[in-house]
This record gives sequence, structure tokens and C-alpha cells, in this order.
Amino acid sequence: MLNKTGWFYEEINGLRLGFLVEGILYQGHSSYQEIYVLKFKKLGRALILDQCIQLTERDEFIYHELIVHPALFTHPCPQKVLVIGGGDGGSVREVLKHEMVEVVDLVEIDAEVIKVAEKYFPSVSNRLKDKRVNIHISDGRWYIKKNRFKYDIVIIDSTDPVGPAKVLYEKGFQQDLVEVLNEDGIMVIQSESPYLHEQFIKGLCDFLKGIYPIVRIYVYATPSYPGGMWSFILGSFKYDPLMVDEALIETRWKGMHTKYYNPKVHKGVFLSVPQFMLKEEESE
Amino acid sequence: MLNKTGWFYEEINGLRLGFLVEGILYQGHSSYQEIYVLKFKKLGRALILDQCIQLTERDEFIYHELIVHPALFTHPCPQKVLVIGGGDGGSVREVLKHEMVEVVDLVEIDAEVIKVAEKYFPSVSNRLKDKRVNIHISDGRWYIKKNRFKYDIVIIDSTDPVGPAKVLYEKGFQQDLVEVLNEDGIMVIQSESPYLHEQFIKGLCDFLKGIYPIVRIYVYATPSYPGGMWSFILGSFKYDPLMVDEALIETRWKGMHTKYYNPKVHKGVFLSVPQFMLKEEESE
Repeated sequence: MLNKTGWFYEEINGLRLGFLVEGILYQGHSSYQEIYVLKFKKLGRALILDQCIQLTERDEFIYHELIVHPALFTHPCPQKVLVIGGGDGGSVREVLKHEMVEVVDLVEIDAEVIKVAEKYFPSVSNRLKDKRVNIHISDGRWYIKKNRFKYDIVIIDSTDPVGPAKVLYEKGFQQDLVEVLNEDGIMVIQSESPYLHEQFIKGLCDFLKGIYPIVRIYVYATPSYPGGMWSFILGSFKYDPLMVDEALIETRWKGMHTKYYNPKVHKGVFLSVPQFMLKEEESE
Repeated sequence: MLNKTGWFYEEINGLRLGFLVEGILYQGHSSYQEIYVLKFKKLGRALILDQCIQLTERDEFIYHELIVHPALFTHPCPQKVLVIGGGDGGSVREVLKHEMVEVVDLVEIDAEVIKVAEKYFPSVSNRLKDKRVNIHISDGRWYIKKNRFKYDIVIIDSTDPVGPAKVLYEKGFQQDLVEVLNEDGIMVIQSESPYLHEQFIKGLCDFLKGIYPIVRIYVYATPSYPGGMWSFILGSFKYDPLMVDEALIETRWKGMHTKYYNPKVHKGVFLSVPQFMLKEEESE
């Protein structure tokens, strides 16, 4: 919430992250959610959906590079990519850094998010107009049910698993998703904070292991999400992110402009999963 | 600060981390600093020195395991260890998990910190009474000047580089430190947040590279420090933490009770240093 003293707070379970606000740039409601654009002193412009920070100008590169590149560099030839959610365009921007990519389908439920991103976050949304990108304003659930196209990579770049995004974390959706993935395809999903959502992550890992032979969680930290560490889960039918040859990644990555990801980080984020998370996996 | 609505806030540059407080367990002043022990709803008891959170019961294992184990597992036979600061006892507890360790000298400037830790944080301080541990109530600067003993490992487990801890980050102290390290010794120091203290980290790396042939920064995240990612810097005369055989670490680590560290994390935390930090290093 934005309080009278000029601080915006995001709160989970008695933990708060606060940002000194220098201005309110936009305030509105779409059919799905409340949308704010605030200017934070430290992190620049911030996109806030239903009181949750989605991204800030200064640190969005961390989330977007890490939801995209580990999966795309794990696949030897990612040509067709589906992004569900991600109307801000940050994931699409990162996907298009891979020259092999021929098609990116972006399925965003809320057209207002795209409009707001285009107006207030041009450095994030600027690749949405690329000719390889198709924007579908649609519910991800229905899109994958009626779709006959197959993808190499599916990225679930959604808000937290509440509200409109809740279904994207449910078994039914995840099982349907298999139908739109090639048989060597890879799925990646943002999976909350190991310190704040332990049970959620455990549940998500559990059922993904019933779908994908290779399921790997990986971790990162970003100043605008509370609780320190956050995670993604990658599900893969064939390729293991830890078995990819570093020299091959190096060749594809060379000349690509990234601020967080590099071939060492690729391995590092999977290896640095804390022991307490692995112990939970072992005890399943 | 602790405000009237029952929240404790730590603030850096327009970013705040807030904790819902359930009680004030201790409040006092030593000769060096203001000491509080608060009970946080989410993270349990918290030790707060001069308004900065030093540790909380529930997440202190992250900081303490990561300041200790990367250095101790990099050294093939760490027998003599010096901890400067760290009066809470958390680093000593982790050091003593290594059976090879024969002596741990703890040099804490503020005897009150030790007393408070013994009373309010028994799970952190409980190994301070081990017969291998010698406690010296002294200024780290003077201790290393008059000391004639040589160590395999020196751990600078200090508060932020302001107040009494400031000198521990200065060139003079770091140069004196070399005199108490064996010629294959390793030094590790907590080095703040890459997102909040970029220039500080750059400066510290710069002059440490003038002292140690091997200087490696590594990163982690903990819920009670603001800004997401935090870092340590390891300086070493001979052993490179990335060149240690994983199987050797595995053998020594087996049976050791750690919640964050494991042989994969050892490598992971060094590899997952973001590209923007390396670019700075390259451009030096």
C-alpha cells in the first residue's frame, strides 16, 4: 500500500519491503486488476498490479534475464517460444536476443498492462513490435486449449499465484501445457520465495515431477521482491540445464548484451540452491 | 527504527525492510553501540546493533554458513582460525564443524555483544564455550598488531563498515592482516550489497587484489538484509575456491549438519556473480 508518508509497502507475513515514492505516474483499473505506475527514489519507475510490484526500471533485468536465458540456452535450437503473461514485454525482449528464435507468441490476459508498459516502460516493452512477435490478448488457459502450434519453450511469466494467475499454477493447466510443447520442449515458471512460500514450492515441484523427467529449481535475488531469495522452476523433457556444455553457451552468448546472465551464472543459479530445499526434495 | 505501529525498519537510500515486532526483549548501550534484542513475527529473535539488524534466529544460518564454509573447504587443512567481530558466536559455531580445526581465536571489541548473545541467542552462541575457542575482548586492529600467532583462515565477521567496524575495511588493517596469515592462508570479509554499495565493493576488491593473488567475490540472499543480494570477498594466497575438487569437499562435508551450504552451493555462489559486477572488474 501507498501510505501518507510517501512510502509504498509490499507485505508478506510480517515482512515488509518499502520504497520511497517520488510520484504517482498512473493509476487505473482494468477488467482484471488495479494498475499503478509509481516512481521510486531508488529503483525508478515501478509497475504495480493489485498492490504487488511486478517490476522496476532498475532491477527488472534480473528477473527477465533469469526467467528466459537458462531455458533458451539449455535448448540447442529454440525457434518457437510461447510467453504466457509478461505483457510488460521484458521476457519477449530477452527471448529475441536469441537469433535462432523465429516466432514468439505472447499471451497476455490484460490488454491494459501492455498499453501501460508501452507508455511508461519503453525500455522493457520496446521489442513487442518486432515482426517475430504475435500478441494474443487471451486467457492462457484457453489459448493453449485451442492452439494447434507446438513450441520449443514455454515461459510462464505471471504475477503471483493469486487472482488471474492462480490457474497457471494448477495441475490441469500444467497438464494441458504438455500438448503445446515439442517432445524435447522446456517449460519455465516463476516460483516465489523459498523463505516465504516453502510449501507452495514443494507442491509445485511435486506435481511437475509427475510431468517432466527433468525438474530443476534455480534461485536469484532482486531488490524489489521481499524475502531475499526467489526462484524459478524449469521442467524439461530431454535437456538438462546442468549438462549443457559451457563452451557452447559461451559461443551463443558472445556479443549478446546481458547484465546478469552469463555462461557461469547459468550453472551457478542451479548449483546454489540451498541445502534445506534439497533436503525437502529428498524427504518427499 | 522501531515505530509506534510496531514495525522495525532498516533503511538504505529510499529502500526499507520492515519487520513486525512482537516484543522488545532487551535494550541497552555498551561503550561502543546501542544494542537491541527484538522478537520479529516472521524471523524470531533479532540482534540489532546501532539500528542495523545483525542476525535473526531463523535466517542467521545463511550468513554464518556462507562466511565460514567456502573458505574452510577451500583450505585443505584449516587448523588455526581467527574470527574478528562475530561476538554472537555464529561463525565460531560453523568453524567448529570442521574437525581439523584446533584453535579458534575470537576477537570481539564489545563484551556486551557476547553477553547478550549468550543470554538471548543460545542456538547461535552455544559453541563459544568449546575448549578450542579463546575469546579476546579487544580491538581487531590492536590484536593483529601485537599477535605473534599465524592463522590458516581469518574471518572478518563485522558489522557494516561504519562505526567501530570501519577500520576493518581499510587498507592499513588489511595490510597488517597479512602478517598473521600463513603463506597459504585465506581471508574472508563480508562486503555488503552489490545493488546498494557498488562503489564500496569495487574499492574493496581493488585494494585486496593488490594483496592477494586470488580474490573472489561470492553472493547470497537473506530475508533480513535489504536490497536482495549480498556478498562476501575471499582473498587467498594459494588456493582457489573454484579449483577445489568437489569430491574432496563431499568427503569432508558428509555428516556435517548444514542448512544452506553443500558442495554444489560451494561452487554455485562463486559462479552466480552477476555479469554487471564482472564487467566492472574488467574495466578496472
